[in-house]
Amino acid sequence: MADRTLVFPAAEYRDRTGRLQRAMDRAGLAALLLTAPADVFYVTGFLTRFWESPARPWFVVVPAGGAPVAVIPAIGADLMGRTWIGDIRTWDAPNPSDDGVSLLAGTLCDLTGDAARIGVPMGPETHLRMPLADYDRLTRAVAPRRFVDATGPVQRVREIKSEAEIGRIRAACAIAGRAFDAVPGFAAAGRPLDAVFRDFQQALLRAGADWVSYVAGGAGPDGYGDVISPAGPVPLARGDVLMLDTGAVKDGYFCDFDRNFAIGPASDAARRCHAALWQATETALAELRPGMRACDLHRLLVTALDRAGAAPGGGRLGHGLGLTLTEWPSVTPRDETELRAGMVLTLEPGAVVAPGRIMVHEENIVLRETGPELLSPRAPAELPEIGR
Amino acid sequence: MADRTLVFPAAEYRDRTGRLQRAMDRAGLAALLLTAPADVFYVTGFLTRFWESPARPWFVVVPAGGAPVAVIPAIGADLMGRTWIGDIRTWDAPNPSDDGVSLLAGTLCDLTGDAARIGVPMGPETHLRMPLADYDRLTRAVAPRRFVDATGPVQRVREIKSEAEIGRIRAACAIAGRAFDAVPGFAAAGRPLDAVFRDFQQALLRAGADWVSYVAGGAGPDGYGDVISPAGPVPLARGDVLMLDTGAVKDGYFCDFDRNFAIGPASDAARRCHAALWQATETALAELRPGMRACDLHRLLVTALDRAGAAPGGGRLGHGLGLTLTEWPSVTPRDETELRAGMVLTLEPGAVVAPGRIMVHEENIVLRETGPELLSPRAPAELPEIGR
Repeated sequence: MADRTLVFPAAEYRDRTGRLQRAMDRAGLAALLLTAPADVFYVTGFLTRFWESPARPWFVVVPAGGAPVAVIPAIGADLMGRTWIGDIRTWDAPNPSDDGVSLLAGTLCDLTGDAARIGVPMGPETHLRMPLADYDRLTRAVAPRRFVDATGPVQRVREIKSEAEIGRIRAACAIAGRAFDAVPGFAAAGRPLDAVFRDFQQALLRAGADWVSYVAGGAGPDGYGDVISPAGPVPLARGDVLMLDTGAVKDGYFCDFDRNFAIGPASDAARRCHAALWQATETALAELRPGMRACDLHRLLVTALDRAGAAPGGGRLGHGLGLTLTEWPSVTPRDETELRAGMVLTLEPGAVVAPGRIMVHEENIVLRETGPELLSPRAPAELPEIGR
Repeated sequence: MADRTLVFPAAEYRDRTGRLQRAMDRAGLAALLLTAPADVFYVTGFLTRFWESPARPWFVVVPAGGAPVAVIPAIGADLMGRTWIGDIRTWDAPNPSDDGVSLLAGTLCDLTGDAARIGVPMGPETHLRMPLADYDRLTRAVAPRRFVDATGPVQRVREIKSEAEIGRIRAACAIAGRAFDAVPGFAAAGRPLDAVFRDFQQALLRAGADWVSYVAGGAGPDGYGDVISPAGPVPLARGDVLMLDTGAVKDGYFCDFDRNFAIGPASDAARRCHAALWQATETALAELRPGMRACDLHRLLVTALDRAGAAPGGGRLGHGLGLTLTEWPSVTPRDETELRAGMVLTLEPGAVVAPGRIMVHEENIVLRETGPELLSPRAPAELPEIGR
């Protein structure tokens, strides 16, 4: 039907699998069990929105050598058969008495010895996408093999993006950039925020997004209260700052950046805040280097905001990005993850404009040996005004 | 900012919580720990697309009596504060050394005695949305309290929809119905399937969807190969059957139904298959009653397809629907869940048109004491033709 068999050539997936297997070897893992959509897509190229249905678990096993093995519901056999994966084992799901557990246990036992340590991502930012009771059954069925945490090996591999991946994220950023350019055409005083959200999603699709997994934003006098609420029917008003933030998807890869707009003439407070956020981002673009840690980037941004007279606000000041809307690390004082060349990150300084009012500014970059390379089209230095 | 504080009046959430607490009492549960977006929305009204970020866990505890307690990242305090929940405990997430675990453990210990059994959904169609390693830490921190499976109590309550919920699902269905009506305006021979998918998503937003969590479909001569693949750039051709399937969201509630279209004149095989699927659905609409089991509905549909000369194909023949694209039960020979008045279900007969080619037909209903009431606008009895 669809002829999009693979987003990338098979060599890309083979290379990823090889990198994972080297990391597994260093961690003493005889196999890796993956259940999450992003991990499955990463090693197989299996891309579908069908994950939206929580009904069925899907499994991919990465053995110590050779290609991954898919253990999946029969409904996915056709699509998985068009990826580079040859060994596809299916069951008729959902099956309330055994929803793939014995097939998966048999596969793990085929591929590993009795004393094997089998890696499962169990750490920060991971979820096991299978019923917990089935995981307990699986644990007993594969004994004396043991499941151990594989968060580190998976994250250290996935966080370094290939040029092919960087190209897809850049394409998603360009799509969102075109949609942001269209905002003055549909956002204006009097227009309800929920209608603006609908228009913006349509603009993203018109600009080439495959789908729009995330839109958030806010609007209020000189700033907004939070950045995660759905839109209500409140009309935009002159004096509002409107923020739109999107994770649009192209070929399975996300962008994640926002833009701010003044409805009518911008107040001095909003203009100053936007300028401070923009300038803090400039500082990070100039000074960030591989070898710094996530917490170093946090300090760099906070210092730059402080120098510009702005009080940080709005949560973490950036994060990883790629196969999901957000990836590790977190730009916070507590995250000591080393930032390495090839990482794709958001720079997301936020500041308090007035009590209960914030503004957040966001760009997407790939960290190169020489410093950041922008993937999102750079926001204008001055807060744009709509309908002045 | 947004003034959509709650999708429903607080009384709706109070009623749901009371029903859960009665089910908990029958199951001997002193509290319920919820981590999944749909469960959290169900009891609190907390609705956000921010779940798209896997970075942070979110917890809601339903005690044996009284209102639920939210244990959430500080970034969500503002939005949760606009729901009916009064007891909101926050931490500064993500925190790699303790991402809410001690705060949650303290809350569970506050609310229950030492010997408590605390329910967590662990069964079919559930996932624990927190890192597995943190769940292990939590298990140790609340001992001698024990976590036990609460899938049954949660599903028996959630599966009976209130009239308010049925109204939202009906609204989502009406939105999708208007978007399907627009399909002949943008689908035609020569137009690539991925462009049709983009147009269809825009049509859903124009028709009033808050967002479009799911679009799938397919196109091919007389039928399609599967129903979960993303769209490729292959142009539609005369003789194709085009199917579009959507889970559009309104106020947090999903529709899930599809429509088929012939590109150019429909072949006899495609028309006959569509007629058989439509007729099998008519049979279910006429004969389905509360007290039948999911497997009885499966047999009813298979028998009707057989009588119409069609061979069943394409997976399960229906499922629950509401706060997620698919909910339990599954219309399969193996699912013995009793169908009760108030359940919202899809009727989804599929049939094989030719080797490797299927057609799937889907409607959404609420089961009443007297039988099914359609929530989706009924598909036309004859396969519609585009550009004949």
